[in-house]
This record gives sequence, structure tokens and C-alpha cells, in this order.
Amino acid sequence: MAEEDATARLLPLPAYQSREKHQTEGGWRLRSTVLWVSLILNLGLITMFVTNPPGAPPSWSDALQAAELAASRWCSGNGNVFVDTVEVNADGTTACECHECFTGPDCSVSIPDCFANVDGGDPLVFEPYWRENADLGAVVIPSWYRMSYAPHDSAPTLYLDGFIAAIKDLHALVGNAVTAGRYIVAGTGSMQLINAVVHSLALQDAGRVSPVVAKAPFYNAYQEQTEYLASSIYKFVGEPDRVKGNAKGQGSQIELIASPNNPSFQIQEVPLNVTGPVVYDHAYYWPHLTPITKAVDNDIMLFTLSKVTGHAGSRIGWAVVKDFDLYQKLQAYVKVDTIGVSHEAQLRATQLMRTVIKSYSEGNSGRKGIFHSSHDVLQSRWARLQAIVKSSSRFSLQELKPAYCTFFGQISDPSPGYAWIHCNREEDKDCLAVMLSGGIIGRPGSSFGSSDRYVRLTLLKRQSIFENLAARLAKLAAQT
Amino acid sequence: MAEEDATARLLPLPAYQSREKHQTEGGWRLRSTVLWVSLILNLGLITMFVTNPPGAPPSWSDALQAAELAASRWCSGNGNVFVDTVEVNADGTTACECHECFTGPDCSVSIPDCFANVDGGDPLVFEPYWRENADLGAVVIPSWYRMSYAPHDSAPTLYLDGFIAAIKDLHALVGNAVTAGRYIVAGTGSMQLINAVVHSLALQDAGRVSPVVAKAPFYNAYQEQTEYLASSIYKFVGEPDRVKGNAKGQGSQIELIASPNNPSFQIQEVPLNVTGPVVYDHAYYWPHLTPITKAVDNDIMLFTLSKVTGHAGSRIGWAVVKDFDLYQKLQAYVKVDTIGVSHEAQLRATQLMRTVIKSYSEGNSGRKGIFHSSHDVLQSRWARLQAIVKSSSRFSLQELKPAYCTFFGQISDPSPGYAWIHCNREEDKDCLAVMLSGGIIGRPGSSFGSSDRYVRLTLLKRQSIFENLAARLAKLAAQT
Repeated sequence: MAEEDATARLLPLPAYQSREKHQTEGGWRLRSTVLWVSLILNLGLITMFVTNPPGAPPSWSDALQAAELAASRWCSGNGNVFVDTVEVNADGTTACECHECFTGPDCSVSIPDCFANVDGGDPLVFEPYWRENADLGAVVIPSWYRMSYAPHDSAPTLYLDGFIAAIKDLHALVGNAVTAGRYIVAGTGSMQLINAVVHSLALQDAGRVSPVVAKAPFYNAYQEQTEYLASSIYKFVGEPDRVKGNAKGQGSQIELIASPNNPSFQIQEVPLNVTGPVVYDHAYYWPHLTPITKAVDNDIMLFTLSKVTGHAGSRIGWAVVKDFDLYQKLQAYVKVDTIGVSHEAQLRATQLMRTVIKSYSEGNSGRKGIFHSSHDVLQSRWARLQAIVKSSSRFSLQELKPAYCTFFGQISDPSPGYAWIHCNREEDKDCLAVMLSGGIIGRPGSSFGSSDRYVRLTLLKRQSIFENLAARLAKLAAQT
Repeated sequence: MAEEDATARLLPLPAYQSREKHQTEGGWRLRSTVLWVSLILNLGLITMFVTNPPGAPPSWSDALQAAELAASRWCSGNGNVFVDTVEVNADGTTACECHECFTGPDCSVSIPDCFANVDGGDPLVFEPYWRENADLGAVVIPSWYRMSYAPHDSAPTLYLDGFIAAIKDLHALVGNAVTAGRYIVAGTGSMQLINAVVHSLALQDAGRVSPVVAKAPFYNAYQEQTEYLASSIYKFVGEPDRVKGNAKGQGSQIELIASPNNPSFQIQEVPLNVTGPVVYDHAYYWPHLTPITKAVDNDIMLFTLSKVTGHAGSRIGWAVVKDFDLYQKLQAYVKVDTIGVSHEAQLRATQLMRTVIKSYSEGNSGRKGIFHSSHDVLQSRWARLQAIVKSSSRFSLQELKPAYCTFFGQISDPSPGYAWIHCNREEDKDCLAVMLSGGIIGRPGSSFGSSDRYVRLTLLKRQSIFENLAARLAKLAAQT
């Protein structure tokens, strides 16, 4: 556009201007020269402009323009267009990919009576932060980027050095976990690492079937994954026997515990006298989700990018472990299962973590960091939800207390990712069904090993979903 | 640079030039105006240039410049610098990541007596194609790109529509496999899909332990993965019993077969009367690696990006299946194992496959496509290897015949990814040790279920590695 205007205004001039009685008046020369230089320079600049944007090698301008074109498409704030969006509108233009409950070529149409799907833990609450800070966290990947199986070609590492360094730097910034002198193993999401850890621990206890245990309410994937993969060396048995410990079951108990807990967001710890290995899933131990009270330093700890920056689709998780033998077995599992982790995902995770770190360093041009901005959003959602639940006696909500957060340097109010709701009425035995009757899709208590009087509702999705949830829950609470 | 020169030449001029007796001569006005317009336009253009490269939203110029800076670093053709390269030289500059057998700040130093590591199947032979066509296949990823677990937010698909479409388009272009009316499941590399398929087939044969079989020589991962994951529902038992079929073992035999075979590159088929399910691993059934003689249409087929474009590090593989129930079980496995496949990897794979397709379409500006260019390289490597082996009686090589390739439209000479070498001398019982004595690191026959008189050497790595292999093998062949 800029260059079009410029061209229109400028191009007709030189030929016409410069010929006119050129040598007649001496004083002219300099001016004419200046004019010429200036006009030619304009042409030069315009040409460069059109053919070769500075900062971009010409070779990548296609990729850049494609991404820019996609990003410039307006989907009413209710959808996205990306370079790999394939659906097209009737008029041949690329169709917007609309968010849940929106439709139309530009996603401007709300789907009437759309259910509030608050099952799952999709962290789309973080999307607006990245949209609003569009200059942060983008990556450009040349076609020859890290093609080898090995992240560093001739090096024996399973992961990118910069990626592992960014993980350690991020924990150091937040102060939520000790990584100094610890081993880090990444996985295709922490989902892969849950089984990697269980499998590896069972291998360390060879010759016996290891019971896998978790105290209810526990993250449903612990049971679902362990049972579905049907291993011959471990078996999910449910509640831990923390008294008898190893006496129960053939092998040592492998206990899986999430802290903050999924679904209840309570901080959990296992008694020190437990004899079997304990796997601490610290996916939610970040300051926007819970107050950071100390740097955790457990033997086996799991984290995931999806609950830090919100990039669930990247499938990036990591384990921090103390035992070298376990570290080696975890790498062996990741190798035999998927031969490592996508290099593109590691690169983007690195860039995103570096961006978060930078946003909390000097000269961040006064931007709000993602932890502050996301905590504000989640804390207000929680406050609104509490008000709704307290408006009647039909439901109750888990109790969460404010605490001093070492990262924020102040008392931090609860900002959980999930509401763990109990249906109080005698007849409301199936809390999921109660929610469904009000157009809310939750996750039943039984899938967390609890009673179906409980249901888990996520607070981590987009604002529009939360508004839908809040409105529908208020109606249900008011029902008599 | 461009803008610096421009600024230096131009900026001093306007103030000095324009003020000089401005209104005195009428004829001046137009010229002065033109000069002004022109000079101001210069300044405007320069400013835009500096602050806002066209084609790039200002927001992404950092990412772009970082990638460009990295790509512009010269590593003597023996290394790379990427945006996430962390090692630094003594002088503080980012260090080159050197290829195997090279070292030094700019990778210009060959490591003396460096062994030829031709174990593994790292497809770095494809890297020069992408380097030489630097404008192809790059991707730019905004920070908010597909953050959800779901590729399409509200859609239930496990994969990106554009990614699945690109897979089908690529097979249609090459004509190597039937995908019309077939189901496609992607995995974090075909490695994940091998076990996904075995696990899912075993689930279809519930209540019995399914024997997993493969005819030697078979790809070593079939046995290693199946045994390491220690399932309770299937078990690797080795050679198939194609006569008794299901009678052998408790469940139906699940046969894994690579065609072309890894390591021998022979085309393989299972007799039609085999009763158990057969998994065809067609990783190498692409025209640069073997003549395409027909569009394969087996019930269960595996493919991987790493052997098409060379992007092993992306961890992208796919299965093409006919049975809907199997399709659902495969997706369930990928969900429970890794909750899908990295969106960044899917995006890049899409871009790379689209690039390959485009390079074989009209208006590809006469570029050589990757299949032609890579076939030439691999065919010449094979010819040289044959000459070396034939130079003495010490080794022999698998026999491969030219065949008419429907994609190239002509007889295509062998261009295998692996040399399957047999040590002929009585005393050379351990062919791996023989190779090692000559500074060649191969993979022993026993890991493919064969005798250790065999060794597999990869031909898929960088030219420098192949040259090293060729020189060392020639020495060994000449040894008496």
C-alpha cells in the first residue's frame, strides 16, 4: 500500500522534470543533481521495498507474508485463521476457524443455546495474552532446521540444550522448583512422562508387578492411561496403602500425586514414611494458578508447558528427577516410544519460555507478565464462581485459602484451574447429570475416583466459555 | 545496511538545499515542490524501512531477524547456527553446531581419524536439498498458533485438516499408496504408530496374548520396542509361522513387515493365505529410495516424514488403514500415550509436503524436485559402494535390480538407504567387529534377527560421512 501511493506520486515526475532545459542555468546543476539523486534513490528504495524487505531474507518473505495474511484476518475476536487453515467460504476466501459456540464466515454469529463445555483442561485462558502481545514468542523455522533425529546432530543428547536451559531458567525465575543438580527429561506432553515414569520405576523393581496408586480424588488420566496401556509390569490398583506400603501388592507401590491437586487444587504431600516411590505432578504449581510457597524439591516431579504458557497443542512436558538410573530409564522410554520429542515443539517452547523470562526482566517496556495477567483473570473467575455457588445451598465448592506467594511477593488469592463442585441436594446424586440439565458439560467425580456427587468444571478455557458457564450455573443454583 | 548508506547520503541535504532563495524565481516553485516531495518521500520511505519491513508485521521482525542472523552464519558448510543455538565461542559469538567429524568455531577443522558412524538411519542426505532451496518450506509461527489440545479448537479431530490433506495429496502425486476412502492416523513418528498398531490389533483379539512376529532380517525396532514396553496383551516371538498361522501362540499372529525391507531394501509381501493381521511398514516406499511399481493398498500401512523429506527430528509418521474400528483404537492409543501430535510438527510437515507437491507442479521455475535430486545422490552412492565391494571377495552386498518407476516414468536404478553387508571370510564371523576395526560403526546383523556375519550400514547420512565410509570400506576390502 505505502509503496503504491509512493509510486503513484513519484514515478511520472523524473522524466518530465529532469529534461527541461537542463544545462542552461549553471545554478541548476547542483539542484538537478540533488533532485536526480533523490529521485533515483526513491526508485531504488521503492524497488528494494517491493522486492526485498529488510530483516527478511527474500527467501522467507513468502512464509512471512502467508503468516501475516492469515494473522490479519478478522474473525470477530471469536476465531482464527492460520497458514494451514484449509476451509474456504463460498466466496473462495479462507474461512475463519471459529471458537466453540461461534459460527459464520467471520465467526460473528453466536450459536444459540450452545452448551458450556467445561470438560477437559484446555488452557485457552492464556490465548488473549499472546494475542495482545503479538510481537512476543513468534518463531521462524527454516526448512533445514534440525532435521536429524539428534537435536544437536553429532551430540548424544535427546533434547535441545537451549530448551533444557530455558526450563531451568524459568524455574529459577519463578522459584517454584529446584533444578540445580537435577536431571531433566522431556516428553511429548507430561502425559507421555506419566507412563514413562511408572514404567521406569516398575523396571527398577524388576520381577514383580508394581501396584500404581493414587489417592482420590486423583487426575483421571493416571488410571485411564495405566489401564489402557495394559503393562505386564505394573497395574493400577487405586487407593494407596500408606501404612503397609510395600506389603500391599507384589512390587513397591508407585504413588501418583498431583499438587496442586487435579481436580481440587489442594496442595498435597505424602507422609515421609511412605516407602515406595512417589511421583509429584506439579503441572499446576505456577504462580498464576496457586501461590508459590517454596521451591519444591521432590525426587520425581512432572511439569507441562500447557499450564505455564497455555500451549497444550505443542505437547511439551518435562520431568525433574534426582536419580541417575531413573533418568536413563526415562530417556530410554521416550526413545523407544517416540524417539524423542518434536524439535519444532522444543524450539517453540524455548522461545515462549525465554519470552516469559524476558517479560520479567529489566526493560520489558512495562508490559504485564503472563503470570500476573493470567492470575488476575483466574482470580476474578474464581471470585465470581464462589459468589454464584454461595447464592444458594444447591452446590458447594472446594475451599481454597489465600497465601503469601514468594513470586508475587504478596498474599495471593486463589486462582484455581478447576472448580470441584459437590451437589448437596439429596436427589442430586448424579452431579454431572444436574450440570447437563443446565447445559454444562463437566467431568464426573467417578472418573477421579470419587463420588458422582462431585463434578469438575474447568476455569481454564476462553472467557466466552466461562461467561456461558457462569450464566448457566447461576440458573441452576437458583432452581428450586 | 541499505538504509544506512541512504541516510548517510541523503539526510544532510534537505535543510541546506530547500531554504536557499525559495520564493525568488517563479519557475522554482514546481521544482522546489518536486524536490521537497521527493526528499520528504525519501525520509518517509527510509523511516518505514527502518521501523517496519513490508511483508512483516513489526511484531515479528525480531523473530525474523534472529532466524536470519542465525542462518547467515557461515560454518564452512560443516555446521549450522539456529536461533536456539546456545554454545558461544571465546569471543562471545554464537558457536557453530558442527556436523559429525568437524570442529572449530566455524567447523572448518576435520577431526582426524574420525570414525564413520553409519549406524542409525538419520536422513541427513536430504539436508542439502533444503539448504539449496532456502526459500522453500520455511514456516512462521505466531505465539497464539493452535494452543488448544484440539487442532481445530471446537472440532473433534485429532489432527490438522491441512496436514491430513497434504498427506493424501503427496501420495496422490507420487502414486505410491492408495489413500482414497482410507483412514489416516498420525503419530509422533512412525515409531509411536508401530506400537499403536500392535496394541490396537491385540485389543481387537481380546483375552489372548497376541504373538508379534517378523521375518528376519527385520527392522530391529520391531523387537526392541515390543519387548521394552512389556505389554500384557502381546509378545514378540520372532519368526512368523505362516503355515500354522493362528494355531501358533495364543492370539492371532500380528506380523510386522517392512517393504522395501529395512535393512535389505528388498520388496516384501506376505502370502495371501496368512490369517493374522499384517502391518506393512512402507517407510522407504518413495521414488528416491526404490522404484514405485504400483500404488500399494494394504489393510495397514505405515509411513514417516523422515524418509520422504528427511525431517526425522519433527517426529511425524502416519498410518493408512481400512478398518474403522482399528482407526478408532489407533486414535485412542495416540490420545492416551501423548494426547495427539505436536501442532508445530504437523504445521511444518504440512508446509514441507506442500512444498514438495508444488515443486512438481506447473511453474516450479525449473527446480529439481527432491525425489529426483535425492535419487541421483543415493543412486551414485550405491554405485560407488557396489564398486568397492566388488573390488575384493571380502564382502558381499544385497542384490537390487533396476525397475520401471511409475513416478519417474522410466527405469530407475537402485538407490537404497542401507547397505546390508555380508562378511565372507571364514574368520570374519563378527562383521560389526570387522567394520569397527576399519573405523566404521554399523549395526550388527543379530539386531535384525540375522547372523552377525551381516552388518547394516546407512547410506542416508551426509556426504562427508559417506565419503568417510567409502574410503574406510575400500581399505577393508583391500586388506589381505
